[in-house]
Amino acid sequence: MTDDTYTTRRARTRDRLAAVDADGLVCFPSRNLQYLTGFNEEPGERHFLLIVPATDPATLLVPELYGEQVRSETDVDDVRTWADGDDPREAARDVLDEHDLRSGRLLVDDTMWARFTQDLRAVAPAVTWGLGSEALADLRVRKDEAELAALRRAAAAADATVSDLRALGTEAVGMTERELADWIADRLTTHGGEGISFETIVAAGENGAKPHHSSADREIRAGDPVVLDFGTRVDGYPSDQTRTLVFGGEPPAAYEEVHAVVREAQAAAVGAVEPGVTAASIDRTAREVIEAAGYGDAFVHRTGHGVGLDVHEEPYLVAGNDRELEPGMVFSVEPGVYLDGRFGCRIEDLVVVTEDGHERLNTTDHDWR
Amino acid sequence: MTDDTYTTRRARTRDRLAAVDADGLVCFPSRNLQYLTGFNEEPGERHFLLIVPATDPATLLVPELYGEQVRSETDVDDVRTWADGDDPREAARDVLDEHDLRSGRLLVDDTMWARFTQDLRAVAPAVTWGLGSEALADLRVRKDEAELAALRRAAAAADATVSDLRALGTEAVGMTERELADWIADRLTTHGGEGISFETIVAAGENGAKPHHSSADREIRAGDPVVLDFGTRVDGYPSDQTRTLVFGGEPPAAYEEVHAVVREAQAAAVGAVEPGVTAASIDRTAREVIEAAGYGDAFVHRTGHGVGLDVHEEPYLVAGNDRELEPGMVFSVEPGVYLDGRFGCRIEDLVVVTEDGHERLNTTDHDWR
Repeated sequence: MTDDTYTTRRARTRDRLAAVDADGLVCFPSRNLQYLTGFNEEPGERHFLLIVPATDPATLLVPELYGEQVRSETDVDDVRTWADGDDPREAARDVLDEHDLRSGRLLVDDTMWARFTQDLRAVAPAVTWGLGSEALADLRVRKDEAELAALRRAAAAADATVSDLRALGTEAVGMTERELADWIADRLTTHGGEGISFETIVAAGENGAKPHHSSADREIRAGDPVVLDFGTRVDGYPSDQTRTLVFGGEPPAAYEEVHAVVREAQAAAVGAVEPGVTAASIDRTAREVIEAAGYGDAFVHRTGHGVGLDVHEEPYLVAGNDRELEPGMVFSVEPGVYLDGRFGCRIEDLVVVTEDGHERLNTTDHDWR
Repeated sequence: MTDDTYTTRRARTRDRLAAVDADGLVCFPSRNLQYLTGFNEEPGERHFLLIVPATDPATLLVPELYGEQVRSETDVDDVRTWADGDDPREAARDVLDEHDLRSGRLLVDDTMWARFTQDLRAVAPAVTWGLGSEALADLRVRKDEAELAALRRAAAAADATVSDLRALGTEAVGMTERELADWIADRLTTHGGEGISFETIVAAGENGAKPHHSSADREIRAGDPVVLDFGTRVDGYPSDQTRTLVFGGEPPAAYEEVHAVVREAQAAAVGAVEPGVTAASIDRTAREVIEAAGYGDAFVHRTGHGVGLDVHEEPYLVAGNDRELEPGMVFSVEPGVYLDGRFGCRIEDLVVVTEDGHERLNTTDHDWR
């Protein structure tokens, strides 16, 4: 990030606010706030607000105990603080007043807690409220070169970990899902990642049939198809990929066919990615392959989601999303088939839309061996 | 947790809803949902709602990919699913309709994302909205024996790690803050904890003057006061304690005095904890000691916060909170002094209110050596 990354993004946000007929934007600790200021903080129960008027520079209103840190770590000139014991709603009302934002239309972070939105509604009852994504999604959805560089490095750390998993082979048999998840976290760090970008999924055998099973005390046995879905972060940007591997022995009879179907669906969907096609059409491409093979009912989720500062963000590859793909968009392509009580299979890569097609950010083999 | 833990809690919630004149409660993935169903899930962009009418059994409306898992892992009888491609707002509207909840007064999770509250407002425009804490805070604030047992074990894991830190001694000199944070995470796991309950704070020297500094590449030097604030979870319940240690060499001239003041303030505040006194009075007790020593302006945060499934919850020990302490309440007592550019000092223990006084859950020494 260069020195003016955040001032530039806030300026572009003001333009976007005007374009969507909004008078201002209010963020709290969120990926939007990180995108607009570089400040990365978990939401907490204290009022921590970034107010971006469509016509004025931004104001940060933060708890006093964050004051020094926010002033030293952001380029926002106007930082106000409130102390424990003060009423932060009064402070918020005053800032909105100064920027003439107690009427008109304001956007709030899509993830802003009800605790805070209800306070904002109370101090600005005449305002009409919308969601920040109206203005920000179009900015955030097209990644710039610095963002793509971080995403590539995060993907490389995940890919190197997939290679380690293949090398681990039969040594994984007898480990519990949770032990293997810890092992993966360690490898991701070794390969330059910072932490994990979401709870690691290691789902063996019948657990793989639950698409969002994370990892538990079940031991990995020879012949288990094991869904391995994990990621890390580099410079704040995440990776997210999935392989379904068998660490030893022979998988269930139906598995080879299912894996081949999922693999074909994933390859077809990735192959269809280029500027101008719709997000829904990529979902359709994957689904048609799986439906034709008779597993349509077992593909119970959308084909993919955008990836940026948020692991799940626009664009979503789902039926009904007629948004056209544009260069710079990054998303997962991850069809899966889930057979209750038996096993699951999912294959996922991150893909970036280029000027004339696409680039896979995850480049390891799709084989299950 | 016994088999009827969650049905009992939901029944008590219905009583509480009636008591606060609310017709129902809507949760999304949150600690409230975990408290009421045992289901622990991070919020995501998909609509995942628990509807608790004041007069009917609860309904869960979840994305189809969670269906099997939610049915097998919760005791909620009425589980509905919606599929990617469906409109989850229509599904939510139908459930609210069935329970006659599209008018009257509804509470939503305090942490519910604006994305979902705005959808609920759209499908039930006649409803008056409040926050779930109105009904649930009084239930969750008094911990039962199973909850206290988990909190004691989580505190013990943190205490054992403090002992390890003291034993580490001068070996910590030369480690970066982040390296020591990783070391702490490893020790917490060794002592029976699951992960970390919040981002570990290792704040050396001048970084300690930022109360919410986490940990970075700064090396720990001999003579640095190092603020060490960390916790883990056992059975879903967190620990949270702080010691400020010097790992070798002599601390800055003012440090011994500041540490003694903070230590005295913390002991006085803990000593004042008993049923019937107010949360604000505990804050006052700590603050008076620090003010009398001339450091009042450097104690920039409240004295403590309740701890349960949320690391920060009711009761807050802060000026103006006239809530009376009751047996079963658990909270931190954590005064601190922060000298900009120089160092910080904070001492924190978790305390449970007993019938006739209090019990410290963290029992390690407060000394800085």
